[in-house]
Amino acid sequence: MINQTLKGFRDFLPRQMAIRNRVINTLKQVFESYGFSELQTPTLEYADVLKGKYGEEAERLMYLFQDQGGREVGLKYDLTVPLARVMAQYPDLPKPFKRFQIQPAFRAENTQKGRYREFYQCDIDTIGSNSLYADAEILAVISDSLKALGFTNFTIRVNSRKILFGITTSLSALQTLDKLDKKSEIQVREELIEKNIPGIDEIFARLKSAVPDSDLQQVIEIAAGMGVTNLKFDPALVRGLDYYTGTIFETIVSEPKIGSITGGGRYDRLISSLGGPDLPAVGTTLGLDRICDVIEELNLWPDITPTSTQVMVTIFSPQLFTPALQLSNSLRVAGINTELYPDSETKLDKQLKYAANTGIAKVVIIGPEEVETDSVTLKNMQTGEQKRITLEECLLELKPI
Amino acid sequence: MINQTLKGFRDFLPRQMAIRNRVINTLKQVFESYGFSELQTPTLEYADVLKGKYGEEAERLMYLFQDQGGREVGLKYDLTVPLARVMAQYPDLPKPFKRFQIQPAFRAENTQKGRYREFYQCDIDTIGSNSLYADAEILAVISDSLKALGFTNFTIRVNSRKILFGITTSLSALQTLDKLDKKSEIQVREELIEKNIPGIDEIFARLKSAVPDSDLQQVIEIAAGMGVTNLKFDPALVRGLDYYTGTIFETIVSEPKIGSITGGGRYDRLISSLGGPDLPAVGTTLGLDRICDVIEELNLWPDITPTSTQVMVTIFSPQLFTPALQLSNSLRVAGINTELYPDSETKLDKQLKYAANTGIAKVVIIGPEEVETDSVTLKNMQTGEQKRITLEECLLELKPI
Repeated sequence: MINQTLKGFRDFLPRQMAIRNRVINTLKQVFESYGFSELQTPTLEYADVLKGKYGEEAERLMYLFQDQGGREVGLKYDLTVPLARVMAQYPDLPKPFKRFQIQPAFRAENTQKGRYREFYQCDIDTIGSNSLYADAEILAVISDSLKALGFTNFTIRVNSRKILFGITTSLSALQTLDKLDKKSEIQVREELIEKNIPGIDEIFARLKSAVPDSDLQQVIEIAAGMGVTNLKFDPALVRGLDYYTGTIFETIVSEPKIGSITGGGRYDRLISSLGGPDLPAVGTTLGLDRICDVIEELNLWPDITPTSTQVMVTIFSPQLFTPALQLSNSLRVAGINTELYPDSETKLDKQLKYAANTGIAKVVIIGPEEVETDSVTLKNMQTGEQKRITLEECLLELKPI
Repeated sequence: MINQTLKGFRDFLPRQMAIRNRVINTLKQVFESYGFSELQTPTLEYADVLKGKYGEEAERLMYLFQDQGGREVGLKYDLTVPLARVMAQYPDLPKPFKRFQIQPAFRAENTQKGRYREFYQCDIDTIGSNSLYADAEILAVISDSLKALGFTNFTIRVNSRKILFGITTSLSALQTLDKLDKKSEIQVREELIEKNIPGIDEIFARLKSAVPDSDLQQVIEIAAGMGVTNLKFDPALVRGLDYYTGTIFETIVSEPKIGSITGGGRYDRLISSLGGPDLPAVGTTLGLDRICDVIEELNLWPDITPTSTQVMVTIFSPQLFTPALQLSNSLRVAGINTELYPDSETKLDKQLKYAANTGIAKVVIIGPEEVETDSVTLKNMQTGEQKRITLEECLLELKPI
């Protein structure tokens, strides 16, 4: 047997799962607070469904194969195509359909770029409303989500397709202008010259005098009314022009310096172009894996332990198994996550070492003296401190009321 | 585009997700209360890893293909093989490694049997302990899990491999005896006769006089000491004989009449036989999809709504958008999941119909009279009842302290 994950894939061990679960639960709570409901779609779809959109380059990255019944199938490439299929398959879904979806997607990317071939996508979209409130609401969800995750220093850049095309209708020029957040104006001008774009001065003049049009102004005002204070109008923000039809947005987290972690906008024609019904839509993707990786790498959540076990009960000796078992029952019934060390024959030292290695913060010892005096010894594995207390005191200490 | 899920696959719409999420969260809480931690492994593995165990018939059901790099890969067939790989790949994991894993597995089953080709597996195992406490703990986890899910009428049948082989060493005979829970003794005897099994009377005599051996007796006693009251020794329980090495168990839920929804036991040699390290193990599978389907079909959780939205705020008229927005902010800040209807132009009737169709139980209306009198109208969508109250009263009603 090959004792390795497949190249570009990875396991999530308990500590990583603890971070991911907390991120997902935090996001779900925010999404649900705005009335979004969860959807899940299968890992496999018909290849024809998957290939509906992205052209050859994307198809090269799709995991496509023939199943046992000779059907051409493939692994989910994103969550937007399955959403379009869902809207077509269940025409009776009440509209607007406000859904979020948090599931893996698969792309045979070049792993040298540090990319994973299976990654969690997190999408949140409102389907079937062309109200500008729906656009603003997505901005509010992004803002509340990042705050709930503890990112306080971030900017949501907003723009709209219409404003962009007022600056230049050259797609090639726009692609270069999009780099203004990373490159200097001089560098961007040089690239435009290389591309033989005419009227570069006029482009920059229009860029500098650009203001939000009335739609975008309304989106910004509604979002402000919902407590979104980190919006920044950026007429050079481009994103996917064959995709978005109105508002576009992107979030940059500056502290910690993570870069772009959300991207989205209004895409009123995409669902029908994928063969789905003609429904307006607006939404965003959140870079869930990136968020989880950053929290792990920078140790942003130092209280996260690789285990949710609050206390481990040791077995002092095989003869004292029963009091240890009863003690662990009592702690668990009191709502405390309690692990009983399973092997009576193992030396106490080794049991404590296991607790330390597993990240269990507290250990209870119940030896002959404790049994005799109707007490327990509670040991703090971080400080090494230990004290003899009653069961009631122990319960109170582990689960303060 | 084909507007269909692939044959044998299915979407989970919001109501189904609500059930599944509650089942998963309930189970996780029980698992963690015993000190089990979550693990996730990739959807794809090397084909050689997947094929490590089950023989040709299983391989026929595996989704195997070649990836872009020419590697032979496949979709997870179960969660046991990835667990064995994890134990081999991370030799430094503290032992015992107590993990649970809730992820999809894939089998190209015959869908006419009502089986799905992508289904959630839920496994919970203790790796690296041969203590009988570890066996009993799995029984306690099963019992607590089913109680937490609201299944009060269930029986955990227990047996052990050693007892089975004391009755007969004929695998073929054992396979027939295993049917004693569904067929009469006469029918089972007839099948044994057809199979030309010698000594049928002796087999039944040994079966009827069988008692738990000292190991199984200990497991049963420890489990009883942990509050497991639904155990039943069943010397005719067989399960997979090439797999299990000690205790075996299976749970039958009799009310509602669901049948077998857990299966497991001790499998001390499996991990090494898969190429992993030589570690004893005990665990169980819970039939998560079956549990969710039954809860949905029998409407066992009538309080489950397809939405977690607690209230929808209507927009009385475009002019009254701002008070509606402010009201929805206030409700949300108070911790109430609040949806603001997005389209100002939509008639109130249609807004209310949307709330009813989406399963939102309560709706707030803020019209000109309400604005003037600093009040809101709260409408119960089930009873149709509505009343004019203050914002404070509304908050209290929606979120009782």
